Amino acid sequence: MNKPLLHIIKVGGHLIDDQQRLAVFLNLFATLPSVTNTGTPIYKLLVHGGGKMATQLSEQLGVSAQMVEGRRITDSETLKIVTMVYGGYLNKQLVVQLQQLGCNALGLTGADGNSVLAHKRVNASIDYGWVGDIDQVNNSLFKTMIEAGITPVVAPLTHDHKGHLLNTNADTLAQELAVSLSSLYTTSLLFTFEKEGVLAELSQEDSVLSNIKPEEYHNLKAAGKIFAGMVPKLDNAFKALEAGVNKVVIGKAEKLHELIQGIAGTTLTK
Amino acid sequence: MNKPLLHIIKVGGHLIDDQQRLAVFLNLFATLPSVTNTGTPIYKLLVHGGGKMATQLSEQLGVSAQMVEGRRITDSETLKIVTMVYGGYLNKQLVVQLQQLGCNALGLTGADGNSVLAHKRVNASIDYGWVGDIDQVNNSLFKTMIEAGITPVVAPLTHDHKGHLLNTNADTLAQELAVSLSSLYTTSLLFTFEKEGVLAELSQEDSVLSNIKPEEYHNLKAAGKIFAGMVPKLDNAFKALEAGVNKVVIGKAEKLHELIQGIAGTTLTK
Repeated sequence: MNKPLLHIIKVGGHLIDDQQRLAVFLNLFATLPSVTNTGTPIYKLLVHGGGKMATQLSEQLGVSAQMVEGRRITDSETLKIVTMVYGGYLNKQLVVQLQQLGCNALGLTGADGNSVLAHKRVNASIDYGWVGDIDQVNNSLFKTMIEAGITPVVAPLTHDHKGHLLNTNADTLAQELAVSLSSLYTTSLLFTFEKEGVLAELSQEDSVLSNIKPEEYHNLKAAGKIFAGMVPKLDNAFKALEAGVNKVVIGKAEKLHELIQGIAGTTLTK
Repeated sequence: MNKPLLHIIKVGGHLIDDQQRLAVFLNLFATLPSVTNTGTPIYKLLVHGGGKMATQLSEQLGVSAQMVEGRRITDSETLKIVTMVYGGYLNKQLVVQLQQLGCNALGLTGADGNSVLAHKRVNASIDYGWVGDIDQVNNSLFKTMIEAGITPVVAPLTHDHKGHLLNTNADTLAQELAVSLSSLYTTSLLFTFEKEGVLAELSQEDSVLSNIKPEEYHNLKAAGKIFAGMVPKLDNAFKALEAGVNKVVIGKAEKLHELIQGIAGTTLTK
């Protein structure tokens, strides 16, 4: 028997900060097909990033944001702010808007239902503060919810089972969810962003590489054809495929249906 | 066959603002028995109030709080703040602490899983803003979670299915949950607060009325023996009993186990 399908869809901060584009995306998300032509169920799960609101609130409250190697240093005050913004305002905004669209969304952090367990990052040279690296995803919780008709909406926060929330990268969170849930579902991991996909020529939006396989990626990377900022994302995507994810798709949030159909964006497969 | 038992426990702002007392309470909550002597399951659900943090954050952000007849007027900025504080920070603090104590808590607003549907309050003389009056509790969602071993932790926010969160009184929310879930469970509704219970003499903490039935309450009230501030709470409690709740208990949060055993606080029954 075929496993049911599960789309794990990551939506980033750039979209969350733009009410109009967000509304378009949420409408597409809410209207994704729920069953294949052959009757296999299609489930979905949303993972969201942070956006600018946490930084703005930090400034308003006089908490200075510290960044090291592109990552926010999460001191106690910053953790409080991201808990309010990611786990509270943004998560509930997505949920309440999806509810209006008829999608039975339920918002979660990794602490809720022990959905995503992590540990505080250990690093000899830099103290990242309350930042989490993921240890385990609670598959049975997600299965219970998903199969009860609920669409989980996951904020980029995890917990350590020692009473601490941990700030966690949303891309990594989406990927770990996809890898873990691949034991129950045929998973597609979708990273939506502002570009059309992985571009052969950075300046040409129409130069999207529609499909990349590992060997081809290896060659493109060796030839310096992959935009530097995209390399860690793609490296991780290929690791996810090795770890059981069926496909990874990267492309424009406003083309969500086409990304899933494989007629827009870049699809990575083994 | 006996219905399983369900305790709906309301914890108020005074406790939420006091880390030490809160820790004591959460430990008691986490260690409540999960089964009766005769093998009937005992489930639990936590509803929390707001505390002072929303007011403090409003002041820090220069949003002035408006109160009319003891109720906060919830304008858009205030709704944003209470969503961050009640739905984000406070709710997740309770969840992460309960997780540490081995209680599989999951935080919800009324929007999450469409758990509590409400409508914006209509009042000819006062516009309360984004304040909700409850229409419907999603029993099947709570049943699915509770029977999967999850303890719901509900923030005092509901939604209108039109894309809006609504600020909702936590006592009322607890009561509506208890009434609705009485069709599935034998429910006890516990209002925990700073007093020992309903007092015969306000100045004497040891004058707790251990049991009050409707007729007795009617007489006490007529004789002016019930503290004015307690009257609306008790009126509502007796209405909840009429509507199917098995018992209502009022007493000190730090005596949670004794309240449930009926050896502390005031128990109201039909």
